[in-house]
Amino acid sequence: MRPDDEIPTTHKELAVQVLLYDTTLRDGTQREGLSLSADDKVKIARELDQLGIHYIEGGWPGSNPKDAEFFQKIQNVELKNARVTAFGSTRHAKNTCADDPNIRALVEANTPVVTLVGKSSVLHVEKVLETTLEENLRMIGDSVAYFRDMGKEVVYDAEHFFDGYKLDAEYALETIIAAARVGAGCLTLCDTNGGSLPQEVELAVKTVREQLRAEGLEPQLGIHTHNDGALAVANAMAAVNAGCVQVQGTINGYGERCGNMDLIPLVANLQLKQGYECVAPEQLKRLSEVSHVVAAIANINPDTHAPYVGRSAFAHKGGIHVAAIAKVAASYQHIEPELVGNELRVVVSELAGRGNVRMRAEAMGLELNGNERAVLQRIKELESGGFQFEAAEGSFEMLVRRASADYQPPFELLDFTVIVEKRGGNGVMSQATVKLRVNGEVMHTAAEGEGPVNALDGAIRKALLPHYPELAEVHLVDYKVRIVDEHLGTAAKPRVLIESARGEERWSTVGCSENIIEASWQALWDSLELPLLRSRALTR
Amino acid sequence: MRPDDEIPTTHKELAVQVLLYDTTLRDGTQREGLSLSADDKVKIARELDQLGIHYIEGGWPGSNPKDAEFFQKIQNVELKNARVTAFGSTRHAKNTCADDPNIRALVEANTPVVTLVGKSSVLHVEKVLETTLEENLRMIGDSVAYFRDMGKEVVYDAEHFFDGYKLDAEYALETIIAAARVGAGCLTLCDTNGGSLPQEVELAVKTVREQLRAEGLEPQLGIHTHNDGALAVANAMAAVNAGCVQVQGTINGYGERCGNMDLIPLVANLQLKQGYECVAPEQLKRLSEVSHVVAAIANINPDTHAPYVGRSAFAHKGGIHVAAIAKVAASYQHIEPELVGNELRVVVSELAGRGNVRMRAEAMGLELNGNERAVLQRIKELESGGFQFEAAEGSFEMLVRRASADYQPPFELLDFTVIVEKRGGNGVMSQATVKLRVNGEVMHTAAEGEGPVNALDGAIRKALLPHYPELAEVHLVDYKVRIVDEHLGTAAKPRVLIESARGEERWSTVGCSENIIEASWQALWDSLELPLLRSRALTR
Repeated sequence: MRPDDEIPTTHKELAVQVLLYDTTLRDGTQREGLSLSADDKVKIARELDQLGIHYIEGGWPGSNPKDAEFFQKIQNVELKNARVTAFGSTRHAKNTCADDPNIRALVEANTPVVTLVGKSSVLHVEKVLETTLEENLRMIGDSVAYFRDMGKEVVYDAEHFFDGYKLDAEYALETIIAAARVGAGCLTLCDTNGGSLPQEVELAVKTVREQLRAEGLEPQLGIHTHNDGALAVANAMAAVNAGCVQVQGTINGYGERCGNMDLIPLVANLQLKQGYECVAPEQLKRLSEVSHVVAAIANINPDTHAPYVGRSAFAHKGGIHVAAIAKVAASYQHIEPELVGNELRVVVSELAGRGNVRMRAEAMGLELNGNERAVLQRIKELESGGFQFEAAEGSFEMLVRRASADYQPPFELLDFTVIVEKRGGNGVMSQATVKLRVNGEVMHTAAEGEGPVNALDGAIRKALLPHYPELAEVHLVDYKVRIVDEHLGTAAKPRVLIESARGEERWSTVGCSENIIEASWQALWDSLELPLLRSRALTR
Repeated sequence: MRPDDEIPTTHKELAVQVLLYDTTLRDGTQREGLSLSADDKVKIARELDQLGIHYIEGGWPGSNPKDAEFFQKIQNVELKNARVTAFGSTRHAKNTCADDPNIRALVEANTPVVTLVGKSSVLHVEKVLETTLEENLRMIGDSVAYFRDMGKEVVYDAEHFFDGYKLDAEYALETIIAAARVGAGCLTLCDTNGGSLPQEVELAVKTVREQLRAEGLEPQLGIHTHNDGALAVANAMAAVNAGCVQVQGTINGYGERCGNMDLIPLVANLQLKQGYECVAPEQLKRLSEVSHVVAAIANINPDTHAPYVGRSAFAHKGGIHVAAIAKVAASYQHIEPELVGNELRVVVSELAGRGNVRMRAEAMGLELNGNERAVLQRIKELESGGFQFEAAEGSFEMLVRRASADYQPPFELLDFTVIVEKRGGNGVMSQATVKLRVNGEVMHTAAEGEGPVNALDGAIRKALLPHYPELAEVHLVDYKVRIVDEHLGTAAKPRVLIESARGEERWSTVGCSENIIEASWQALWDSLELPLLRSRALTR
């Protein structure tokens, strides 16, 4: 995967490959309040692929139509590193595989890998599934064999493995042997309820490995942990140290209850502190960005204190620590923040790099012509006012384009008015009027809409279309609102993110204001001006 | 501390006492954005004392006047369990103890316990402190002896111990021996930068214990960890398993960078899973409350996914898990939530059955009087229209209350109008007018605001306050917007979630409409009607 000469020499003898299995799109969405559309999932899958994740679990196609839609869409996406897997349970006790609806949905998902979850715990087999211990073993064996016969790679998730192992170790072992004998490529031991301790996990993994070896089986072992005891990462690391080579988790630890294991600190710990090989060093530098982009797509405020990638992870609040850092950078930080794409931040005097701006502009094919300082200055001003450019590359591009000496705005706002009215038991009426100057002409237009922002969008388009008919092809595909400071009630500051498209082309823009209509206007403005400037640049 | 007969018999032989040392009031306040007044600190100290915390570190009196004020105030507070300690560094290289200002401030704090922090790492002694290794040993010995001679208990914090131990184990050991020889009651080994791994911590603690014993010293050992690798709790548990008997941490893991070790899951793990004795079982039941009260005083939104005490920690989102729980309560939870004062929560959603509605209503102390079916029907209608009740228990409560036969609305909406205007280069102006019928009187009011929702909120309050002055105590503490279907551009449907508070009471309400103003109105309506109906129910 990564060239041998990039592996630090001190790690060479240890560089065991650990395979990363991401279930943000399935188990992650079990988090209360988190919901992703099929398109959101495709966007996240692209991020995961670039990060170097080896397996992407896309969903449970048997459980809802949205997941089936994702598996349709992902077939047209070219992934560089990752294999996509569909999740489902072993066949029902009363069905054969061929007539089991859940199994059929897995077949229809048409993925190279299938992940099958089955029961390891006698309690769950008898009291929850309400079947016999023998039938459960047949369900596991049949289901794994069914997909192996189709030539698919099968990951077998042993649900409640550690709890089941405590109750009846022999039976728990039999369940995974049933999967291994018919060719499951990986047996993933799950701490489903999240209550295990690292020493328990380590001991169980070691014992299971020995027992499997005694049966003549040496399958890959995987680990799936949850954070109910604040030990998810420690448990996964204990399992890896005991011989698991595949690790399941989610970005930012999203998941049911207290969350799944957070892949981000796991990867950083394994790679930077123990010399395991997970992703390439340049992929590791994307950790911070991936964490933030996934949070933005999930519409969840990023945890500013998240290990490695939080905004505060390498922040120092002044006094002694800052003085010490000035003397010895490593004195109060456990790694170099740049290794994971983060930065040391001294809270009192913000230091940001012009280099960052240059790198980013270059990556987008934009020329800065010496405007790094001006663009950086403007970003700092706007971000201190609540804007955020991490998930709004379109607005970043607009900052760069507007900083150019020959910038000519294709239109200017003069006025707008938005009115929302509810009268008695009737519905709500929204209308907007807009006055723009477009190519020297004042356009004054009005429109109604489903809501105030929709009305505003309609009125702006009416004003622009006579001059720029190409905007008819530009569509808004996504509109998100977040509150920047959530402690102020309705006087808090909304931040609006808009995603727009023209054919396959996509761009995201941002606005932020105490007034949600103004914030929406700012994001709309960038979203409509950007395609005009891009076209202009092309025709030159 | 707790009567012998309350200790579960299986734990009796293991019941080693672990002493809890809380530094929320000192290291916790290093968290970016967290600040506590002296009175806030006293309130938190009372909570910690009731929880059974053994040591409360109140602050660093040498570093700021607010901490000195706390130590004044706390002398008049009677604490049942806890001993208060003041934190400071060993004397400066150039001072004697008697003329060191930091040492003097510690004396003036007048606490029974003093915590002295000193350097263990050769790097820090030579490059940061810029003194000699020998002088550093004298600084430690002199400072500890100074307070021991006053009859105080001394905790010695060995800063950067694990990093220092890796650099020069012999010197690191000498520093703690210097403290132990002159009577430090506890030597606390600090993973100051938070980057250590559990196996490293365990090995270092074991080795240090043996080495101290070889010197004829058997002091108490303590552990202080940070969460930079998402391993703070695991590291502290590894240290306890290796022989540390005192554990430092903070409530909710507040602290610099990625936070200190979170005492809450630590206590629950040690006591419920390993049989250590930390606090009495009835104190353990206060964990959830303490977590929430401290968050409220710190003005930080509680982490709903926090292990053990988060609102979602024992929440189940439907389908298979809920059905399994109905069969076997323990099937999807690692402990009984009541042990830590939390509760199993079946998330109310469109997937729910009537049983869920009944369970939910009963848990909230509401009577359904046979309205389960009607309430469930209404939930399903509203959720299919984009509402979501899983994070809006206040609106669920309103559905139940409105379904009651004797429901009388305290106010009714007649009309509202919201206008947002931008003129030329000027700022944006928002105003709202509202017409409500309140107790038979038509109230027609108007207000301006930071944005349209804020203006609407202002106008509604103006209309209601003359009739319901108690609403003056009701505050909006959180306002969130999510877009339900994000693929329709600005015609997508916003869902608004509002959290309100009256003192310690909190409730969340929801609204959903294609029009964000109407969605906000719906959530505002529930948020203001709920406290009126609750008060009415109490006075009946």
